[in-house]
Amino acid sequence: MTTAVAIGIDIGGTRLRTAAVAADGTVLDRRRRETPASDEASLLEAIEDEVDAIGGVLPVGIGIAGLVAPDGVVRYGPNIGVRDLALAARLGDRLSRPVTVVNDASAAAFGEQRAGAGQGRRDVLLFTLGTGVGGGVVLGGELLVGAGGFAGELGHVIVERDGRACPCGNRGCVEAYASGKAIGRLATERLAASDRPSGLRELTSVGGSAVSRAAAEGDPLAQELLLEAGEWLGVAMASCVNALDPELILVGGGAAKGVAPFALPAMRDTLAQLVIGHHFRVAPPVQLAALGDDAGTVGAALYAVDRTTTGEGPP
Amino acid sequence: MTTAVAIGIDIGGTRLRTAAVAADGTVLDRRRRETPASDEASLLEAIEDEVDAIGGVLPVGIGIAGLVAPDGVVRYGPNIGVRDLALAARLGDRLSRPVTVVNDASAAAFGEQRAGAGQGRRDVLLFTLGTGVGGGVVLGGELLVGAGGFAGELGHVIVERDGRACPCGNRGCVEAYASGKAIGRLATERLAASDRPSGLRELTSVGGSAVSRAAAEGDPLAQELLLEAGEWLGVAMASCVNALDPELILVGGGAAKGVAPFALPAMRDTLAQLVIGHHFRVAPPVQLAALGDDAGTVGAALYAVDRTTTGEGPP
Repeated sequence: MTTAVAIGIDIGGTRLRTAAVAADGTVLDRRRRETPASDEASLLEAIEDEVDAIGGVLPVGIGIAGLVAPDGVVRYGPNIGVRDLALAARLGDRLSRPVTVVNDASAAAFGEQRAGAGQGRRDVLLFTLGTGVGGGVVLGGELLVGAGGFAGELGHVIVERDGRACPCGNRGCVEAYASGKAIGRLATERLAASDRPSGLRELTSVGGSAVSRAAAEGDPLAQELLLEAGEWLGVAMASCVNALDPELILVGGGAAKGVAPFALPAMRDTLAQLVIGHHFRVAPPVQLAALGDDAGTVGAALYAVDRTTTGEGPP
Repeated sequence: MTTAVAIGIDIGGTRLRTAAVAADGTVLDRRRRETPASDEASLLEAIEDEVDAIGGVLPVGIGIAGLVAPDGVVRYGPNIGVRDLALAARLGDRLSRPVTVVNDASAAAFGEQRAGAGQGRRDVLLFTLGTGVGGGVVLGGELLVGAGGFAGELGHVIVERDGRACPCGNRGCVEAYASGKAIGRLATERLAASDRPSGLRELTSVGGSAVSRAAAEGDPLAQELLLEAGEWLGVAMASCVNALDPELILVGGGAAKGVAPFALPAMRDTLAQLVIGHHFRVAPPVQLAALGDDAGTVGAALYAVDRTTTGEGPP
């Protein structure tokens, strides 16, 4: 019989997902609710409720959309409305068990490497596509959290110095070219700049998912925008491959499937072209992630188990 | 008494350096000769001579300027004139002992992390500045060689899509903006484009070291060029920090000291500005490497010891 080894919790700007996860990454129980708005007490209470609903005394692993220090303090979670929240320590006290906290996209990367599309590969990068662009880095089978806990921010690999403005405050990050928000903004600019016919003109506001839908319906402008986003992602991937030479690059997140038909071939082509020594090697494959919405909970749970059993203790 | 634990050999386009290295990285014996030109047999013979001159039966670690597969095959070493040379296997046979081969800049990074400016830090990046821009990545105290052996090519982190042509065949790599060759070329372009006075005008041909010398003598155009090279390096460093969050970034290689007075502050400023979440964290320090010409031999030797004693065997 498959039994749960940990509870994984994935806290995004809108959804809070909870899962009881087996050692092989199988999800045995799955819960979902809205993330409470901008209030630490409500957030802690919501997490406690979800853990209680699963029951037992399993270790808890949390993946949260924000910058997480190695000691489990959420330094900054803009979409959740927390700042310098000692999440691991405070929840550990409340739940009387080890609580591990990492960035949500890092958790997803670990989930995919252990139990998803990256199974059997030791060096895996994940780019997550959604409202923003996130990422995670697994090297030698271990999740890279970085010296300050800030590793894996692959959306902020710079593809063009002094390029387009990024929500992070800088310019030229790949997120500024390939996030859902960026694709929507580029679509609006492109429509304004020409008379080209496009189904997107009928919409009052254009976001990334509208572009994906239009592309699937055959809209040439929408298809072009997704291809361009894929090219920019390919540039960022090439920088990462030249620095890290991973075995595999995965593309996940809520927007991945929508953009894939047009963006994925562009990512692969651009990467193949820009990787160092492309006459003497093959660029790593770029593939869709496999776990969908479960990646974060599965990864957070398995990471918690790793940290709890290696004697390193929860961070 | 300090005794040697391995022989380290650093093979560059022009110099072949050999050292007997102690466990703490101390160099006990040091030899230098020209790299034999474009001939596998001469290269193997030269290495064998150098190893014999050191004497003993110590394991041998080699750092070589080229793309090195994990099995010790030098896939491509353009400046040495080798291609698909099974260096580890062939030397292992000739020398009857374990021979480990890695990229030269990766070896230097490992040397600096173990026994140089990175001592006591687990996550260290090295950018090497010379004719080209190289690099090495040490994470968790271990040298990252990558799935295909091609990790650490930090000179080919892309700072501007479709930017300046790089000797690697691509465009926009940081090497195309910050190598000695690139700085020389930019100087020539800048001189041709204006009437600005500069001591560089008196030279028949301008290379990176001439620019460094002129900058040290107070030439404003030369100083400006080094500052700009530093800014481009800062962009590449920011991408690496956003992906990996290391503790420390080192700058080494033959050109490092010459460019440092003007380029190092520019690297730090640009990095501090482009690192994700700069309101919530401090960017890692950027410092000069410490081992100079010994970095490669020391790193190659210590890496050979690690590989030989961990049971993983020479690659």
